[in-house]
Amino acid sequence: MKKASSRITASRALVEDLVAGSRILAMHEVLDAYGHVSARSDKRPDHFIMSRSRAPALVTAADLMELGPDSEPATGDKRKGFIERYIHGEVYRTRPDVMAVVHNHSPSVIPFSVTGVKMRALFHMASFIGEGLPNFEIRKVKKGSDLLVRDARLGKALAKTLGKSPATLMRGHGSAVTGEDLQRAVGRSIYLEMSARMQMQALLLSAKVTYLDAAEVKASAPVQDYKRAWPLWREKALAQARGERT
Amino acid sequence: MKKASSRITASRALVEDLVAGSRILAMHEVLDAYGHVSARSDKRPDHFIMSRSRAPALVTAADLMELGPDSEPATGDKRKGFIERYIHGEVYRTRPDVMAVVHNHSPSVIPFSVTGVKMRALFHMASFIGEGLPNFEIRKVKKGSDLLVRDARLGKALAKTLGKSPATLMRGHGSAVTGEDLQRAVGRSIYLEMSARMQMQALLLSAKVTYLDAAEVKASAPVQDYKRAWPLWREKALAQARGERT
Amino acid sequence: MKKASSRITASRALVEDLVAGSRILAMHEVLDAYGHVSARSDKRPDHFIMSRSRAPALVTAADLMELGPDSEPATGDKRKGFIERYIHGEVYRTRPDVMAVVHNHSPSVIPFSVTGVKMRALFHMASFIGEGLPNFEIRKVKKGSDLLVRDARLGKALAKTLGKSPATLMRGHGSAVTGEDLQRAVGRSIYLEMSARMQMQALLLSAKVTYLDAAEVKASAPVQDYKRAWPLWREKALAQARGERT
Amino acid sequence: MKKASSRITASRALVEDLVAGSRILAMHEVLDAYGHVSARSDKRPDHFIMSRSRAPALVTAADLMELGPDSEPATGDKRKGFIERYIHGEVYRTRPDVMAVVHNHSPSVIPFSVTGVKMRALFHMASFIGEGLPNFEIRKVKKGSDLLVRDARLGKALAKTLGKSPATLMRGHGSAVTGEDLQRAVGRSIYLEMSARMQMQALLLSAKVTYLDAAEVKASAPVQDYKRAWPLWREKALAQARGERT
Repeated sequence: MKKASSRITASRALVEDLVAGSRILAMHEVLDAYGHVSARSDKRPDHFIMSRSRAPALVTAADLMELGPDSEPATGDKRKGFIERYIHGEVYRTRPDVMAVVHNHSPSVIPFSVTGVKMRALFHMASFIGEGLPNFEIRKVKKGSDLLVRDARLGKALAKTLGKSPATLMRGHGSAVTGEDLQRAVGRSIYLEMSARMQMQALLLSAKVTYLDAAEVKASAPVQDYKRAWPLWREKALAQARGERT
Repeated sequence: MKKASSRITASRALVEDLVAGSRILAMHEVLDAYGHVSARSDKRPDHFIMSRSRAPALVTAADLMELGPDSEPATGDKRKGFIERYIHGEVYRTRPDVMAVVHNHSPSVIPFSVTGVKMRALFHMASFIGEGLPNFEIRKVKKGSDLLVRDARLGKALAKTLGKSPATLMRGHGSAVTGEDLQRAVGRSIYLEMSARMQMQALLLSAKVTYLDAAEVKASAPVQDYKRAWPLWREKALAQARGERT
Repeated sequence: MKKASSRITASRALVEDLVAGSRILAMHEVLDAYGHVSARSDKRPDHFIMSRSRAPALVTAADLMELGPDSEPATGDKRKGFIERYIHGEVYRTRPDVMAVVHNHSPSVIPFSVTGVKMRALFHMASFIGEGLPNFEIRKVKKGSDLLVRDARLGKALAKTLGKSPATLMRGHGSAVTGEDLQRAVGRSIYLEMSARMQMQALLLSAKVTYLDAAEVKASAPVQDYKRAWPLWREKALAQARGERT
Repeated sequence: MKKASSRITASRALVEDLVAGSRILAMHEVLDAYGHVSARSDKRPDHFIMSRSRAPALVTAADLMELGPDSEPATGDKRKGFIERYIHGEVYRTRPDVMAVVHNHSPSVIPFSVTGVKMRALFHMASFIGEGLPNFEIRKVKKGSDLLVRDARLGKALAKTLGKSPATLMRGHGSAVTGEDLQRAVGRSIYLEMSARMQMQALLLSAKVTYLDAAEVKASAPVQDYKRAWPLWREKALAQARGERT
């Protein structure tokens, strides 16, 4: 794997995990040529690490940039960042518990974002959905937008909609998913997509769907950390990244 | 393929079949990073063989453990087993006819587990579904659980729900599928997923679906053993396992 | 590619096409480990050529057998044929225009076979569906069957249901698809599956679907021969077969 | 990559992009063995460049032909062109702003073409759909056709239906998608398919779907150019093309 810039204040393990995370999400088709994953720096918690603007399936350590609390490059890096880096920056500012953020357009979630139908936890692997997720309506802060969260003001509005939830839908656009660690942000993104498909099918089968109850959601929270999946996912992703270098 | 521990009381053929079975289910996306397959030992029928806690696509012979009637390691093996090994152990105890068990989260089955809609046999390859399958509601034995079958008491309750059926759904979680041999447990898991998708589509097309009748279900039972599929599936899976070693 | 038995009365080109056809259908997931394709011998038109009982993705020239008008081996071949070879044999007997037959379980067609909903041509690539396809109900000739067409009597009944149609559904089982040449039987099987999926979606979108009219169906018949697709499909399939030999 | 004929009046970059575009669409399953992509010549704007009749996944530079305003070979090229090249030629004649055209049969769009249900922009990546797309009904100009746009008269009728839209559906057949550049024609084809699937799911979830409003559609137009995706897609496609040569 290409080396990360020496100016990034993050451990080597986090850098590898971020490269893996980006490719894991692409392999699961949660990200296609668009979307991004970031992690709060484990050395400077007011900074976060994220690829320069690049297709997620191609990200290497050398593509990672360090961004400050204003979501702008913190180390003199002149490369072009993702336009929507403000999603990440504003969530890190308002949610100290969040260590990683994924923004994605996964296809089964978007239909929920454009209907009044609430996503609910119906499957233990996606128990984090709980009683539902908020839905960010960009028109409440900016009419006639291109739907992109392209500045701090829009990022703040999204973070406000997110509130204390683990994730928020984004109307006509996708979702922003958080985690207490990178594994959770990545795993939740994968299982949010699966849960959306299952919920749509359940609703087509019956008007009456049995969701996880509040006690089950609570009991599942510490368990569903995707830590068993991580080595499998990471190994495949890093093998792919190594294959490109040789 | 890596060698199985010499302490496992199972034939070499069964060990290879179990490694193949785990990977076959991953290749068919019946298992993702989660779920597991086991077989009753062909040398000590009160014991069963199952991988240590590991993603199914990576399982090798060296990962297999021997578990006793209490679902605990029977040979001093100190490695970490799957939390839900009790599903397997309790089914083997109550169902002497069962030689193999698969626990999976295959995505099209879960919507049936959270609605009142009964799965029915509508396709000869999944005739084992018959007049329907039971659905394990964990709340009947444990309220506020994380939905995992993490002890013998929950395993016993699941085995009781299963009764004499070839499989049981697990509400908001997945299913447990059995077989008189490993091929059947694996093949049934694959075709249960396909049948769920077909039944959902049939129900969307029409309120009136023609299912296999009882005589057809009975006549199909001995025939649908997936024995023709097995060499194809096994060959691909073991080629994959061998490829990783070199 | 392995050589076909010298005893098969079929041109080398037909043998290669049959091997390709079997693998093409597996690559398109029209066949999985089950189903089969055959062609009328181009040297002895009362005979047909078909693999021995084997997963379609593995078929080579050496697996091909020659079967006579009674669907039994015609050249002293002792290998085990497919149980359902009678589907092929009886169609060749009653339909001199048919040069190739595919029997498959493609997943989107089966829901139509178990509901009263008629498949109709709604897409030019599957115009052969025309005003609809018959549906073989095995219970009319044999109650309590395992749904398999395992003798000449059942094959004859299926051929009678097929009549002059290019294909027939088989209730709770799959379909039998014919062609004036192998390319058409294979291409129709692929586009029958796609058309079933499209029709289901169209019916979910609206109760009023515009199908191809009779004149359009008629005009499309000579055009939709899949001859442009064939070299692409064949090249991939035979490359796969060659890859296995080396 | 094989060299394009020296007689083609197009830059080397455009030739490479066209080869990439054809394969990108095949990789995304927007094209299967059928369909085609073209670009207006960047040297002679009354001419356009398009493969000879060939499966899109196999197209190389050597397959490209130059066609004139009448959609016929402009450089004495005797090879067989696509029957439906008139779709492209007539769109280039009536739409000077169009620099690239894709004709495809992508599967989720066709159900919309055979129902009265209008596609609408519900997802920012497919904002170009706007308030809807026209639907070409070939019967208005030719009854009893095989649905193919096989002459200039049908091409003109399709171009008239297209009008100023970025794309038109084609009833029972597929769509024709245009772009101010090749990237947009290719990207729009990919996201049109995704948007169709999402809209169908949204309509199944709820009768009330929130689409992008007119101001959002307008603001998105310059942004959704698929230029970030292009290098990822192009790199994969050209690597595939190179792999075939060696």
